[in-house]
Formats: sequence, structure tokens, C-alpha cells
Amino acid sequence: MRIFITGMDGYLGWALAQHLTARGHEVAGADLFLRRQWVEEMGSCSATPIADMQQRLKAFEAEYGTRPRFWEGDLREYGLVEQIFQAFEPEAVVHLGECPSAPYSMMDREHAVFVQMNNLLSTFNVLFAIRDLSPETHLLKLGTMGEYGTPNVDIPEGFFELEYRGRKDRVPFPRQANSWYHWSKVHGSNNIMFACKTWGIRATDVMQGVVFGTRIDGMGEDEGLLTRLDFDQAFGTAINRFCCQAVIGHPLTPYGTGGMRRGFLPLRDSMQCLTLALEKPPAQGEYRVFNQFEETYTITELAGKVQRVAVGLGLDAEICNVENPRKELGEHYYAPDHKHLLSLGYQPTHDVDSEIRVMLQDLMRYADRVEAKRDILLPDVRWDGRREKVEFLEPDQQGGR
Amino acid sequence: MRIFITGMDGYLGWALAQHLTARGHEVAGADLFLRRQWVEEMGSCSATPIADMQQRLKAFEAEYGTRPRFWEGDLREYGLVEQIFQAFEPEAVVHLGECPSAPYSMMDREHAVFVQMNNLLSTFNVLFAIRDLSPETHLLKLGTMGEYGTPNVDIPEGFFELEYRGRKDRVPFPRQANSWYHWSKVHGSNNIMFACKTWGIRATDVMQGVVFGTRIDGMGEDEGLLTRLDFDQAFGTAINRFCCQAVIGHPLTPYGTGGMRRGFLPLRDSMQCLTLALEKPPAQGEYRVFNQFEETYTITELAGKVQRVAVGLGLDAEICNVENPRKELGEHYYAPDHKHLLSLGYQPTHDVDSEIRVMLQDLMRYADRVEAKRDILLPDVRWDGRREKVEFLEPDQQGGR
Repeated sequence: MRIFITGMDGYLGWALAQHLTARGHEVAGADLFLRRQWVEEMGSCSATPIADMQQRLKAFEAEYGTRPRFWEGDLREYGLVEQIFQAFEPEAVVHLGECPSAPYSMMDREHAVFVQMNNLLSTFNVLFAIRDLSPETHLLKLGTMGEYGTPNVDIPEGFFELEYRGRKDRVPFPRQANSWYHWSKVHGSNNIMFACKTWGIRATDVMQGVVFGTRIDGMGEDEGLLTRLDFDQAFGTAINRFCCQAVIGHPLTPYGTGGMRRGFLPLRDSMQCLTLALEKPPAQGEYRVFNQFEETYTITELAGKVQRVAVGLGLDAEICNVENPRKELGEHYYAPDHKHLLSLGYQPTHDVDSEIRVMLQDLMRYADRVEAKRDILLPDVRWDGRREKVEFLEPDQQGGR
Repeated sequence: MRIFITGMDGYLGWALAQHLTARGHEVAGADLFLRRQWVEEMGSCSATPIADMQQRLKAFEAEYGTRPRFWEGDLREYGLVEQIFQAFEPEAVVHLGECPSAPYSMMDREHAVFVQMNNLLSTFNVLFAIRDLSPETHLLKLGTMGEYGTPNVDIPEGFFELEYRGRKDRVPFPRQANSWYHWSKVHGSNNIMFACKTWGIRATDVMQGVVFGTRIDGMGEDEGLLTRLDFDQAFGTAINRFCCQAVIGHPLTPYGTGGMRRGFLPLRDSMQCLTLALEKPPAQGEYRVFNQFEETYTITELAGKVQRVAVGLGLDAEICNVENPRKELGEHYYAPDHKHLLSLGYQPTHDVDSEIRVMLQDLMRYADRVEAKRDILLPDVRWDGRREKVEFLEPDQQGGR
């Protein structure tokens, strides 16, 4: 299948290009390398040393025997999207070309506006290109479990049978996102749902949990194949951040009570799920939603897992909760469905501990890179608009562990 | 109260400036006059002759003894919004400064993008100005009943108690808009809801039905006080369009079956409701939603009303349904709540017929203005992306009337 990946230089994008190529698909990609700039703006860098795209493509070709077509450019320019569609004729588009950070969007007005405009505009361009140039192309769009927020009821996959005052209808499940970024994803999901209904195009919208890990199945050893791994407050996700902290002997820092429960999945599972969605596409006109995660854990549970594995590897891994810079519930009900991908054949990696072990071993090689950025390990972007580093909490403020 | 109206040159804005001033409030406004350009782009003009802003303000001063401060400028530029907040220190902002047309947004990619970006950006700027400059300022934002779509269950006012798999929560009611414009309003509503929750600011989000009419209570006779009245496919709403068609002997043209049911209210009721919302503001931190309409009617019922009143005035008013250029349900359940405004004291104008009579009498004076634009009375913007004028339907395709 000809698959076009927007944001191919990113954490998921570079891994997915390899995974899909290894499965025999023909991959092309585009990127403007904004992620590299954003992370630099946050004062950080990838823990893994990442090569530039020319080196990446060279290593890719050496490993997989083929070189993906690549466009360096801005998907907010429709002309580029059109040109790519005409040149590559994608059968599927995996849209990863969005800014994926809640704290980045919460910094100030400029960042809030940038994240929503950027994410909406690139999605619009892909939708119109599909409608006008290639209506059978399957759009696989990355959303986030964060679109749903934390309602006090179960979370179905996108839609549910609503019973209200004695009548019934199948309707979208209400979204209650918790950052400008997460809302940008809701806006995008809504736009895609509408495009499918109105134009009869087809899409899979993936409400993905928090991804962690450095490895995918069969990844070669050349450093040019490594995908990025962020640990700053904006682009580093929980487990990845904890592991980076562990390899330099910095305390692991859950926010607030650490009682927030979220869905998580290893990078290799994300690859497996996205591939399933691509290889088993929806019917023409269908808009389907997958809740994509392996299992739910509290942040406290995950910090505990990282700590145990790290100690087993001889690392010194204390857990010290810090003030929560976000405004979110510290304890809440959380029971999202995740059956759609299992029914397509998803086989979850249940051994999270060994995923964490592999990641820690990988990261120990790059500990000096993390050490050089030790200063940025504590967040300062607060949901109330202040920019002020969080403090460590006293043990009695940390909630029960 | 000091009230700042964005989009003060528009259909609601110019009427509201007068209504609030007559009530003793201090009004200021801003506008970039884009609505005038958009309607011209659609090949049309206001049926009522509208003066330019300088003449408008002169007539305003002569009638009300005071001249609102006015800024000509672009609310997508934060500097302007900041400047206005500093100069006027508004206690409330009525945000009418958005592009309000579904067909305009459905024309092509450029218009879809423009409408969503424009509407989101101006709303963002107002939200951040409130947070950073004037956190007690009440934001009154115009949404639309179209945000909800036409679910097969009752529509509450914004939120409802969801019972799902044996658990309960109060959550936002699912939105199912039906154009890029309507989705822009949903995106805006979601952003405002989040800002209230996260920053503790306060807002009223008005899901307004379709407004019709030329008059507000106590409007002076000077033509400089007249508000605009559009009849083109993009900016003319159903009853207004039918009345304009009637005064030039053009058939009234419901779309498709005409069975689509919507909430409607006279312009004077819209003024009354917005004033109630302003004078009885929400508590700090509250985000409240009002469904704002007098009653629901099908398009067929309304065309029938216009026809009867028109015939009574000696006009020749045939009803000829045309193809529906939109993709929407022709027959559907529709039962939205509208209790919040009634509980604040809203007294609906139940005599829709006499509203229509006043409007027809007003418009008969300007029949030559509508006649000059007879060519644009049938729509050509279709939801499937085509631009092709609709055909009249044969009687057996029109559904039961």
C-alpha cells in the first residue's frame, strides 16, 4: 500500500516509516522539522541522538533497501499537499503532522493560537486533498485519549447509544479536553467526522494513550534509525520522562497526587495498532474511532514501575512528587473501552516492565545528553498562565502511594 | 454597564448597539466591515439601504444623544483588542465579530479555512484579553442552535445529566454541526468552556435560533439607524429571504422537503434575550449556555406564514420548493429545551405573523434593491463541493405540505 506520513521526522513518524516499510508498504513522508525547533525552544533536545533527515534516509536505505520519498515543507500550504498527492498518489495518509503538546499550547496566547491554527489547517488541507484528488484515500489521524477528559462514566470508542428522556440515538461521546492542544485535536476530530459524513470519504481517528519506549520490533542498530525521545515538560511524556530522570539519578517527579489515571502503550504497540488500522481500513464514507492503549495506569503506578526496574539495573531512582502545574483531577474514575483494535487483532505487550528495561538500557548510553539538560526537568508552564517552576511536595501532600 | 460589541456594523450588532444604549448602557464597538465585503462577494447587498459607519454614528447620536466609541480594525490582531480593553474597560463583551454563514464556509477550501481561522482567532483574542486585562468581564458569545444538529433525542441547554452503564455525570451535550461554519462555532464554544473552567472567567454562550425581522423596539425612523437585512444564499436566513422574495413576486423557495425544523426568533426578541443575559450575568467562573429562540417551526410552516401575510398585503407569493443544496435530514425529530432565558424573564413575541407583516412593509419600500439582485435568489453552493444552481422541484418531490 502507498502510505504517506505527515510528520515523518517525529517520534511516531520515523518509527512508523520503518515499521511499514518492513511490512512491505511503500512509504513517503513530509516534515518541516518544527518538532526539533519546539523542543529546542523548550531548552531541551532528544535524549536519543537523532540524525538529520539526509542521514536518516541513508541509514534507512541501508537497512531496508529502499528510500522513502520525502518532502521538506509546510502542510499548511495547500500547494504542497496537492503536489504530494499528485506525485505519490497515496492510498492512505497517516496524519502525524501536528503539534502534540499540551504545555506548549498553554504557555501563552501566541502558542495557544499557533497550536490550534497549525493543527486545524494541516488537517483541512489533507481533507480537501482527499476530497478533490483522491476520494478513496484512507485518512488515519492521530488524536488522543485526552480528547475525552476524565468523565465520571465509562468512555466508549467515539460514539455511543445515548438514552435521554425516553428516546435513543447514536451520538458522539462528549469531549472534555484539558488544554488548547487537546482541544485542537477535538476540533480536528469534529472536522474529520463532518468531512466523512458530508463527502463520503473515510477516516480512522485514533484516540491514542500515552506512548513510551525507544524501540520497535526489528529496528536496526544504526543510530540513523533511532527515533527521537523527549523528556522536557512539553514534549516528554510521563514514562519517557521518568526513565530519563532515572538514568541521571534525578528523582522521578509525578505531578501532584500522581493519582491521575491514563491509558498507556509501548511504541511498538502503537506501530502495531496503526498498521492494523491501515491494513484493515474503514469502508468508504465511514468515520471510525479507536481508543488505542494497552492498559490504564496511574502516574504513581508507573513511577513505581520505572523505579523498580531502574533499581534492578543499579540506578538510584527516588520518587518525589512535585506541584501539579496543570489544573486536573488528582483522583477520578477512568474506564475507557478499547475493544475495536483488539477485535482487529491487536496483541498488547503486557510486559511493561521489560519495555521499561529496554528503554532504560538504551537511555543509559545517552545519559550525558540528559544530564546536560538537567535544568529543564521540572516544569514551569502552569495552566493558570504563570510561568514558574514547580516545587517539590512534602510527603503528606503527595497522596497515598 | 460598559458593553463592547465586536461586529457592531452587522445585522445584530447595529441593532444591539441601539437597544443597549436606549436601556442606558454605555456601548462601544469595533468592526472591519468584512460582512459588507462577504455579501458583495456573494453578488448581493443588504435589502435595507445601510449607511456607512460615519453616517450611522451621526444618526445614532441624533437619536440617542450619545455616540458610541468605535474602532475600525481587525480583532484577529491582539494589539487592537488590548488597546480597546485598555481604553474602554468593558464590563461585558458581546462577541458578534465572526463570520456567520454556513454556505460561505462550504464554498471551497479557502472559505472553509478562512471561516474557522477567523472565528477561532478573534475568540481567542477576546478570551486572552479578558484573562490578562479584565478577568471579571462577562463574555457573551453568539453561538447557534446549529451546533447541536438534529439528534433523535431532546436537546438540553449545553449540558445534561448523562446516565451511562449505571453511572452518572453532568457533561456537555454532544454537538453534531453541519457546516464548517457551524463547526467553527462548536470549536469556539469548546474553547470558551475550557477558558472558564481553567481560568475562572465567566461567559454566556448563546445557541441562537434563526433570527428574522427588520425592527427593534423604539427604533428611530432615520435610515442611518436601519440594520442590514440580507437575502442572498449565504447571509440571508430563511424568513428574511422569503420576505425579500415575496416583495418582488419571486416564488418563495424552501429547500428540499421543507420539513427541516429549526428554532426561530424575531430580531426584537434576540435583543431582549441578549440584554437579559448581559444584565443578569453568570457568576465568576461560570460557563452557561442558553438556547435562544421563540419557537420551532418547519421551513414549510414559515414559508406558509410568509405567503399568507404577503397575500394579505396584496403581494403575489407562490411557494416553489427547490433542490436542497445542503446535505441534511429532510424530516427529523427536534425538541430543544429553551427554559433558561424564560426563567430570566424573556417574554417571547408569539405573534410571528405581525413581525412578518412589519418586515414585508419595510421591505416593500426597498423592493427595487432586491429586484436588482433577482439573479442571486437561488442557491448554488452545494454541500458536496459543486457550485451549481439548484433546480425547482416537481410537486411530487416536495414532501407533504
